[in-house]
Amino acid sequence: MDLFNLNCRIMNFIHCLKERCKVDPQDRVDLMGRSGELMHLTEREQSAEPACTLLRERQTYIPLLVYGTSEGNEGEKYVPLLADLPNSHPELTEEDFKAKQEIDQVMSGGQFESLEKTLSTYIPEAELSEVCRVLYGKELVRVDLPRQALEAASARDFELQGYVFEAEPEQLRPARLVRVGLVQNKIVLPTDAPVLDQIKALHKRVGEMVEVAAMCGVNIICFQEAWTMPFAFCTREREPWTEFAESAEEGYTTRFCQELAKKYNMVVVSPILERDEIHGETLWNTAVVVSNSGKVLGKTRKNHIPRVGDFNESTYYMEGNTGHRVFQTQFGRIAVNICYGRHHPLNWFLYGLNGAEIIFNPSATVGALSEPMWSIEARNAAIANHCFTCAINRVGTEYFKNEFTSGDGKKAHHDFGHFYGSSYVAAPDGSRTPGLSRTRDGLLVTELDLNLNRQIADKWNFKMTGRYDMYAEELSKAVQHEFQPNIIRE
Amino acid sequence: MDLFNLNCRIMNFIHCLKERCKVDPQDRVDLMGRSGELMHLTEREQSAEPACTLLRERQTYIPLLVYGTSEGNEGEKYVPLLADLPNSHPELTEEDFKAKQEIDQVMSGGQFESLEKTLSTYIPEAELSEVCRVLYGKELVRVDLPRQALEAASARDFELQGYVFEAEPEQLRPARLVRVGLVQNKIVLPTDAPVLDQIKALHKRVGEMVEVAAMCGVNIICFQEAWTMPFAFCTREREPWTEFAESAEEGYTTRFCQELAKKYNMVVVSPILERDEIHGETLWNTAVVVSNSGKVLGKTRKNHIPRVGDFNESTYYMEGNTGHRVFQTQFGRIAVNICYGRHHPLNWFLYGLNGAEIIFNPSATVGALSEPMWSIEARNAAIANHCFTCAINRVGTEYFKNEFTSGDGKKAHHDFGHFYGSSYVAAPDGSRTPGLSRTRDGLLVTELDLNLNRQIADKWNFKMTGRYDMYAEELSKAVQHEFQPNIIRE
Repeated sequence: MDLFNLNCRIMNFIHCLKERCKVDPQDRVDLMGRSGELMHLTEREQSAEPACTLLRERQTYIPLLVYGTSEGNEGEKYVPLLADLPNSHPELTEEDFKAKQEIDQVMSGGQFESLEKTLSTYIPEAELSEVCRVLYGKELVRVDLPRQALEAASARDFELQGYVFEAEPEQLRPARLVRVGLVQNKIVLPTDAPVLDQIKALHKRVGEMVEVAAMCGVNIICFQEAWTMPFAFCTREREPWTEFAESAEEGYTTRFCQELAKKYNMVVVSPILERDEIHGETLWNTAVVVSNSGKVLGKTRKNHIPRVGDFNESTYYMEGNTGHRVFQTQFGRIAVNICYGRHHPLNWFLYGLNGAEIIFNPSATVGALSEPMWSIEARNAAIANHCFTCAINRVGTEYFKNEFTSGDGKKAHHDFGHFYGSSYVAAPDGSRTPGLSRTRDGLLVTELDLNLNRQIADKWNFKMTGRYDMYAEELSKAVQHEFQPNIIRE
Repeated sequence: MDLFNLNCRIMNFIHCLKERCKVDPQDRVDLMGRSGELMHLTEREQSAEPACTLLRERQTYIPLLVYGTSEGNEGEKYVPLLADLPNSHPELTEEDFKAKQEIDQVMSGGQFESLEKTLSTYIPEAELSEVCRVLYGKELVRVDLPRQALEAASARDFELQGYVFEAEPEQLRPARLVRVGLVQNKIVLPTDAPVLDQIKALHKRVGEMVEVAAMCGVNIICFQEAWTMPFAFCTREREPWTEFAESAEEGYTTRFCQELAKKYNMVVVSPILERDEIHGETLWNTAVVVSNSGKVLGKTRKNHIPRVGDFNESTYYMEGNTGHRVFQTQFGRIAVNICYGRHHPLNWFLYGLNGAEIIFNPSATVGALSEPMWSIEARNAAIANHCFTCAINRVGTEYFKNEFTSGDGKKAHHDFGHFYGSSYVAAPDGSRTPGLSRTRDGLLVTELDLNLNRQIADKWNFKMTGRYDMYAEELSKAVQHEFQPNIIRE
């Protein structure tokens, strides 16, 4: 690996540092490697980008920014930043670990870890309960997670949270309990590592999270959008990103998920970049649903494709052609509304009409673009459609070797911002779990009683008061070319 | 007025007090009138309801709970609780005023005044800005409100807030600025005062708020749902509530709004209980839109009618038959999605398809039922439909003479909970204003640049990526009797 990728990441680190420490941007900072040598960047590298201007904070070096020299992961020539290593990395000393935590803080742009953490830190208990009631609905019981799982999550450096959505007991139906797991994670290797290495590293990382989910009794697990790859669509480059595409039915990743499904008796929802070999070798943004039997139950494609800023995804794939199918699993009927589909209430609605009891929304979205909408859309869908929704977003910042522009008048750059995680589950009664961290890998385990859906439907009656006949008629008229809006004028 | 209504209100006060002060429910409390005499309740009155058990707090009387004896408002025989008087009432002494504030606190069930107030009280500034970004989107500029308006609002005892939603300048379109006013208020007189007196008192109260809105340059104002009356539909009694119904075109209230509209050059959206005399004298839940010229521009009816708990409104009126019409005013195209319609994304959607730039959502809803949903639904609609939405909810607790049950297994009671106000405006970019108070009357003035709608639409493209053809087809199939959901089975 050349120094360029490393340089980009260091530039970003310095950029964050500059913001956070309010250091004079004209100052120079030198970066000391783990073995004590200075990292010297060539003139070309330093001038590649304005943020490149190096900073020096009060005449001292910032130690331990860079881990190792040219040694890497599994014998490869990667030079990962210390910040990129998992906390459980066997070569991390205690000193490394502390430095890493400081670096993590800086690398997350000094962002607060989560809304919920800030609220509970500062607001007195009596008022906090009211704040949480208004913001999150009824207070949820926590899942009593096994110690083994908590320890494993800690050792593997990811957050583990668990909550229960209860329903009223009924006379004729037993409780219909299902535990869902939501996985959010950073990519593991640099984006210019060989494709198969990147996929394997993600399989390994997510595999160890699924193992913990199994300890927690999870029945259905869902990964983030395009989970086997960096979210590289912002680059608009064909290579190597299209090489991450796999067959939904027989690909390497699907086979991996089938093994997980059988091993843990777990339904696995695996959102990937799909290569459909028998239909013109086309690309799709697809979720593969693997039954707990290990069989591929089917696939469902992203219905709405964004052309927003860096998310010009139609460069790679077009609107899905699998409609609004719902999958009957042993644990309940599920659907998958991929990413940008969450902005379209009709998309959620049609999954609901087809009987979905849980709708997963695997996503990849960044703070500057969408964060204030994040807590609104999936939750509104749970309320409006009397079902559970599960919103999943990746975390971290991903750096690309070649710079790209974003159509926003700004300079070319190498990343498109911080994926803010904050995955959560919303219930039909308007309540929701807290979000996972904005900066860390995490697994959210949630126990749902699916009886709640019908109980809330019987209370609020949205499906009976919905006047769908009227809307079918009005919408059919509205899509005609000669449609004239119903506007009253004076 | 007999003592019964007064009794109900005292009972509620005592109930709140008991909760708040954690007084032994077996204790007895006597209530001292303003002139010093004890309020003696008859045995029948005391036993009318379990909450009737009177409390005594540490052997002392609670002074000044009841204002006056049998003197009343404008010569009538009302005996208003001190808590019900406006702060600006000419007969209030300073001592009264202090006592009233304490009582107000108790009467609101010890509820915190607003989410935003709690957040800004406790969270340090640096983190508060991040919290607000995540919860409310971009930071809004405050409207520079005239001193005269602020003073009038204070004297008339209502909250006044003002915010601006800005848009980018364009080369070919000037900014399209419009100021909207949202009014939330308690009822003024007891619910068993004569009907016309209640209407007049509300006209007076809301009229003085509109006057302040005019000082603030408001162009379009919207009142809360059924603003001329208590929200009495929970009682399921015909009399006297149906007497509050008026002609949308020529009723007393519409004429009042026409005067306001002409006087202040303001569009007035007036949601009332409508009596349609030429169509079988039927009742409707209707919003009348009065142009700033003073002409009735038209009316639009509530499309979705709840049957939720106490809100069995189909006892009184049925689903509206005016479709999704939009009103072209001098200041922009507006629509009115009344109350329960906010739970139906298709309802917002069709107003949007007909070209609405601002959708008002006049409501009446209580905390235990809907509060966690309140900040979600109107805001989701603004995002999904590239328009502004204005959510308005009344405040206070309304007491009814005859007890009623709520189909929830609980005892009969005389009110159906606290209307939590919290009115707000949401923008297409996901940002929103803070909410008005949860407990006080209020006027929210918001300046919108309607150019923002198209700017955000051009950025996010929901209308172009919405695949409405597909949904028209799928929905048309789904409403057929023989519809079979698209479910994939193993």
